[in-house]
Amino acid sequence: MADQPPTLTDQLLKFARTTPPQDAQAMMRLSLMDWAACGIAGAREADFTDFVRANRGGGDCTVFGGGTAGPAAAALVNGTLSHALDYDDTHFAHIGHPSVAVVPAVLALAQDVGAPMEDAVHAATLGVEASIHVGLWLGRDHYQIGYHQTATAGAFGATLACARLLGLDKHQMRHALGLCASMASGIKAQFGTMAKPLNAGLAARTGVEATLWGQAGMTAAADGLAGPLGFGPTHHGTGAEVTPGKSPWQILSISHKFHACCHGLHAMLEALRDADIDLARIDTIRIRTHPRWMSVCNITDPKTGLEAKFSYAQTAAMALLGHDTGSIASFTDAITQDADITALRARMRVNEDARLSETQAEVFISMEGREMRRFRHDLMAPMTLDARSAKLRSKASALVGQAQADALWQATQGDDLAALISILSAG
Amino acid sequence: MADQPPTLTDQLLKFARTTPPQDAQAMMRLSLMDWAACGIAGAREADFTDFVRANRGGGDCTVFGGGTAGPAAAALVNGTLSHALDYDDTHFAHIGHPSVAVVPAVLALAQDVGAPMEDAVHAATLGVEASIHVGLWLGRDHYQIGYHQTATAGAFGATLACARLLGLDKHQMRHALGLCASMASGIKAQFGTMAKPLNAGLAARTGVEATLWGQAGMTAAADGLAGPLGFGPTHHGTGAEVTPGKSPWQILSISHKFHACCHGLHAMLEALRDADIDLARIDTIRIRTHPRWMSVCNITDPKTGLEAKFSYAQTAAMALLGHDTGSIASFTDAITQDADITALRARMRVNEDARLSETQAEVFISMEGREMRRFRHDLMAPMTLDARSAKLRSKASALVGQAQADALWQATQGDDLAALISILSAG
Repeated sequence: MADQPPTLTDQLLKFARTTPPQDAQAMMRLSLMDWAACGIAGAREADFTDFVRANRGGGDCTVFGGGTAGPAAAALVNGTLSHALDYDDTHFAHIGHPSVAVVPAVLALAQDVGAPMEDAVHAATLGVEASIHVGLWLGRDHYQIGYHQTATAGAFGATLACARLLGLDKHQMRHALGLCASMASGIKAQFGTMAKPLNAGLAARTGVEATLWGQAGMTAAADGLAGPLGFGPTHHGTGAEVTPGKSPWQILSISHKFHACCHGLHAMLEALRDADIDLARIDTIRIRTHPRWMSVCNITDPKTGLEAKFSYAQTAAMALLGHDTGSIASFTDAITQDADITALRARMRVNEDARLSETQAEVFISMEGREMRRFRHDLMAPMTLDARSAKLRSKASALVGQAQADALWQATQGDDLAALISILSAG
Repeated sequence: MADQPPTLTDQLLKFARTTPPQDAQAMMRLSLMDWAACGIAGAREADFTDFVRANRGGGDCTVFGGGTAGPAAAALVNGTLSHALDYDDTHFAHIGHPSVAVVPAVLALAQDVGAPMEDAVHAATLGVEASIHVGLWLGRDHYQIGYHQTATAGAFGATLACARLLGLDKHQMRHALGLCASMASGIKAQFGTMAKPLNAGLAARTGVEATLWGQAGMTAAADGLAGPLGFGPTHHGTGAEVTPGKSPWQILSISHKFHACCHGLHAMLEALRDADIDLARIDTIRIRTHPRWMSVCNITDPKTGLEAKFSYAQTAAMALLGHDTGSIASFTDAITQDADITALRARMRVNEDARLSETQAEVFISMEGREMRRFRHDLMAPMTLDARSAKLRSKASALVGQAQADALWQATQGDDLAALISILSAG
């Protein structure tokens, strides 16, 4: 083995023993607050009630909305609920939502074993960073063929985070990652259904279970992720070269959502944010986006509020008509049938443009009288941690109210895990 | 939708409403007994103790070896334990073990809701048949690239069986199959580790969870199995044409294992089963087998019980000397050094013969005085249900003792589910 170059599993085993840099931890704490606000708000959606009830087994781990469950069930439920709004953080290189797979797993186990906040932050930071690297390593082929990378790469990040938190030795952690390779799953066919957030919850549960079972002595493939017949080779992984731990950390380029819909729509919505248009004079609206988004969020004739969240035409019409795309309450079934909306949707043309990056969008609006307006935005435009903090506190307040948002801010920046947990259970 | 040809999901939804033919049900009851014997014996293996403990949540469903759990956890644990010995039934076309994914799921839910035995048999029969068809539909590509078809195809069969048992309507069942498409997983990299039987347990749990969550109103892709970005297209499925429900039913060509060793040795051992030979007069024993097995199970000088399970010479000598190759207890380190065994092994010659299929073997025994005896067997040769019953009862007796085997026979042929469950819990 000594003569072999390290595989991704070898790299991850080494990476799991490092301490994440401060800026990465700071970003993790911001994402922790954002994730918690999404989960508290998500638990208020009624649709998941029976699912939550079905997963309340014995255990003392807090579940969003109140009640307790064992750590695996708590990770499953909290992962699902905190992704229910599709409003949690994302990472474009990872092609997915990193915190929602990792954080519920870490918090459930941290509560279960009484781990300090600092250990939870370290573990979550490493887990998020690892999941982004696994996402990069799986790559575009994996995502394009139809895998839901939030869940697949996320499960490995969750496993690494949990294994780190519980202090698994290298041997146990290898088996935990191997066990994860048999459980990591989730397909994009689920987009637009409740199974999309479920995929995130399953990834979080996989992290908890792979860790607990690996700790309990269950064996698995020595390199279930990157080895022969392993997860990558079977699941259309590209095997791109990655270096977890290398600066700058990937976690620092996490994107937070400020619109309550698919992230693929955000650059367009930001572009239209300050558009001052006489709607009566609009002839045609042409939206240009990166080709990848065409199969993700281009539902041309949405019928439900959920489908509206995956529709360029719908959200562009909402933005132009002054509906608040930052508010969850805006995405109703009714608004997809609103006469002004459907009239404006009829004027939309969505096209791919390979010259744009995935974080860029352009909108061309042809007005009567040959006038042409052009709007564009790139989500990768830099933002300071302070500016991000302010925007996230404002978003949290919109999601859960000012008092809970303030409490979340204090708890995620402090060192009292129990204080954070108590806010999550408040509902 | 009406003009589209039915997809595999459409076919399965229709199939789930049919009543399986009597011979298929009879085969299912035989496999039920065989599966139960494998599980009872598997639970006695110590390695899984901590894993079992970790999965004993709240619930009243029986777990092999005693104790109870919720239906999902019981399916997970029982599926894993009943595959621990790799001695449960197989199907050549399915490329996997059908009962071990379906039966634990059905029994756990049947116990949970108090369903009658007849309903459980119907559901399990349909589930096994469906899983074989999904296996055929996924095909060789899926298996060859590295997916563990026992688990992947098995999860869909388990889901269909559970959804049928609980009487889900067509809408709920569609969502249950869609949910399964996000959870079905398992890779061949795990072969040789505890994660191989775990894959079977995960498939069984997926059947229970997809059904309960679909029943609870969770939505998923309308065709998560065969539709765009669905399980088949993402997981290297070939999409071969299949027709679940067509005669003859695939379940009728299930293979049961009658020897506690590598499957490559079974045709030879069956050939020697009724050989009436004067051992003192044997000069040479020549064994001919398909070339593929030469690198799999031809250890010429085994030193351990494990090596004995991969040795033509050893197992042939054991069979001729009257040792029970159906009993796990027969494969000890000591028997490889037994004087009679080693003397007989010295007279063995094993050769490949490309004219034989993988399921065929021939044995030529040269006796003193130029007498030559020839024995051959094909594992694909038809067997009556009566002959199969007798062999399976004998195997069950070797696994769990005569009394429990008799009780299992009575219970699996009768209509008292509680009686069967009580045997499983006896340990």
